[in-house]
Amino acid sequence: MKSRGLVVHDSKSPLVPYEFERRDLRPHDVGLDILFSGICHSDIHQAREEWGPSIFPMVPGHEIVGIVTSVGSEVTKFVVGERIGVGVFIDSCRTCTHCKRGLQQYCTEGMTGTYNALDRDGENALGGYSNTFVINEDYAVHVPTNLSLAGVAPLLCAGITLYSPLKHWKTHIGTRVGVMGLGGLGHMGVKFAKALGAQVTVFSHSAIKENDALAMGADSFVCTTESSILKKHSSSFDLILNTVSASLDIAPYLNLLDLDGTLVAIGLPTRPYSVPVGTLLGARRSVAGSMIGGIPEMQEMLDFCGRHAIVSDVEVISANYANVAYDRTVASDVKYRFVIDGSTF
Amino acid sequence: MKSRGLVVHDSKSPLVPYEFERRDLRPHDVGLDILFSGICHSDIHQAREEWGPSIFPMVPGHEIVGIVTSVGSEVTKFVVGERIGVGVFIDSCRTCTHCKRGLQQYCTEGMTGTYNALDRDGENALGGYSNTFVINEDYAVHVPTNLSLAGVAPLLCAGITLYSPLKHWKTHIGTRVGVMGLGGLGHMGVKFAKALGAQVTVFSHSAIKENDALAMGADSFVCTTESSILKKHSSSFDLILNTVSASLDIAPYLNLLDLDGTLVAIGLPTRPYSVPVGTLLGARRSVAGSMIGGIPEMQEMLDFCGRHAIVSDVEVISANYANVAYDRTVASDVKYRFVIDGSTF
Repeated sequence: MKSRGLVVHDSKSPLVPYEFERRDLRPHDVGLDILFSGICHSDIHQAREEWGPSIFPMVPGHEIVGIVTSVGSEVTKFVVGERIGVGVFIDSCRTCTHCKRGLQQYCTEGMTGTYNALDRDGENALGGYSNTFVINEDYAVHVPTNLSLAGVAPLLCAGITLYSPLKHWKTHIGTRVGVMGLGGLGHMGVKFAKALGAQVTVFSHSAIKENDALAMGADSFVCTTESSILKKHSSSFDLILNTVSASLDIAPYLNLLDLDGTLVAIGLPTRPYSVPVGTLLGARRSVAGSMIGGIPEMQEMLDFCGRHAIVSDVEVISANYANVAYDRTVASDVKYRFVIDGSTF
Repeated sequence: MKSRGLVVHDSKSPLVPYEFERRDLRPHDVGLDILFSGICHSDIHQAREEWGPSIFPMVPGHEIVGIVTSVGSEVTKFVVGERIGVGVFIDSCRTCTHCKRGLQQYCTEGMTGTYNALDRDGENALGGYSNTFVINEDYAVHVPTNLSLAGVAPLLCAGITLYSPLKHWKTHIGTRVGVMGLGGLGHMGVKFAKALGAQVTVFSHSAIKENDALAMGADSFVCTTESSILKKHSSSFDLILNTVSASLDIAPYLNLLDLDGTLVAIGLPTRPYSVPVGTLLGARRSVAGSMIGGIPEMQEMLDFCGRHAIVSDVEVISANYANVAYDRTVASDVKYRFVIDGSTF
């Protein structure tokens, strides 16, 4: 399948136009036209090799939404013309206990990434900054028809990454949820937590984001430029989601947790957390981590979004703006996710 | 009530004999003769002001077992002649949500310690290195009649401190439990985990403890002097209890946790844990802390011990040996808890 997209040839080079072939459909494959492809900060980390060596040429992109254009002979899950979503991984071992439980993101062999990965045949997996995609039906999800597709694309990574921990840690009506950082991840956390009935507080060092936070449904906003302000909120949260990937002092945030509260790392800072053990003991607090979500939960999340009319706040751009969008993403200058229009590749 | 015991007058002085008065019984008080009083490492930390300023004169001791000798006019929970246990705290606010749930150890006003604390009337609370004690009935527990009382004393702190996290994190038949450190705390963890049906592994830097660990019920023993050995056990534990209060590199132990596993800090190192965030994310791991247990759970634990014939392994000593016992406890030269014979004060 002839395809066009954007590629980076090495960690020092910008995204440039690229023509390439996608594989022919196998019996369980689905072909799709990509309508929108989100830009995730992790795309930039990997394109620039900030997380270690990457595989080049790289077509980034793992927040993919499109329309099914062809189906393999054995496909039963999708039909041509249907809306379809693809996220952070395209395959996994399918046989380990985690895969069997639908937790493919924690596959003991390692999930197969949507890009910057070799697929299970050893081919370089090329991602979603492109006008087409081919994927095994088991690793794609259905997209509700009532949602704006541009705003759906980021749900496939940013969305599920926040939805999964909120559900795993049993967010319900009245749960006191804190969201650290109001960016691509954080703004989805606010929307999901609110839809689940939580009392939501946003912690951000950007005072100018207060209005947005409240408009998205947050009940309160704490500007963290003055660090002493956190003390006023000690022992008053059940769950805190840290979406900030910059290294920060986690101790004052742990102190915000009430008895049995959990702080969940979503972002991946390069420095370890420095965790005062007494702060954990004093109120049976936990620090945990969570990574995207499995296929069943991605579908559950999208269905939830359909029922609650939740999408990501996006700025739709053309492919030729992607390098500028990268720089603006690094500078946190985006409300709240860039999404590339698939027709502009 | 005239009493004899051991006291430290300041952080540089040894334990010396002491005569003092306990308060007269109030309507809800119980008076007891102490039969055995355990020596907890935290006694030493506080006597020597290693955890910050302490209150002197200090009669340490919060692992107390005895026989009821008198009861106040309103007491309904105990009768004279009955076995009774007292642990780490003697009071709390009784009105906060945690107290109301029976989690007095996490009282929002702070539990009232058995010693090194002012009681809620502002009097210096004198602990269990003594021949008598007076306590409000609500903060004491019943002791099963089939258990050796010397071995019961350490259950009131070391025992509950391990039992509570094992229960809170839902240890059941087949749970893969790791116990870091085989001392006063760790040996209780092995016994409880085994009685709950877990697969138990002890991690210790002392190879000579292997036989004891296996005799206590551990299924396996890992000597950690060679740090690379931990890699062989990666992703194979559901719950790890760290009883080691010395600061150590926690990262290799986090890596031992399987999906959704939790490492619980029991000991209190002075240095924070350095927690690599990617290790948490990669398998939704948690790091948590747990502190003793509440009154209902202390009773549940003692009843469990009665049914399973569990006591602590102890060396019974006379009061005049206590200073030597302190030095030996610091040197980890005890199998596995010193207990002072209450008749020797």
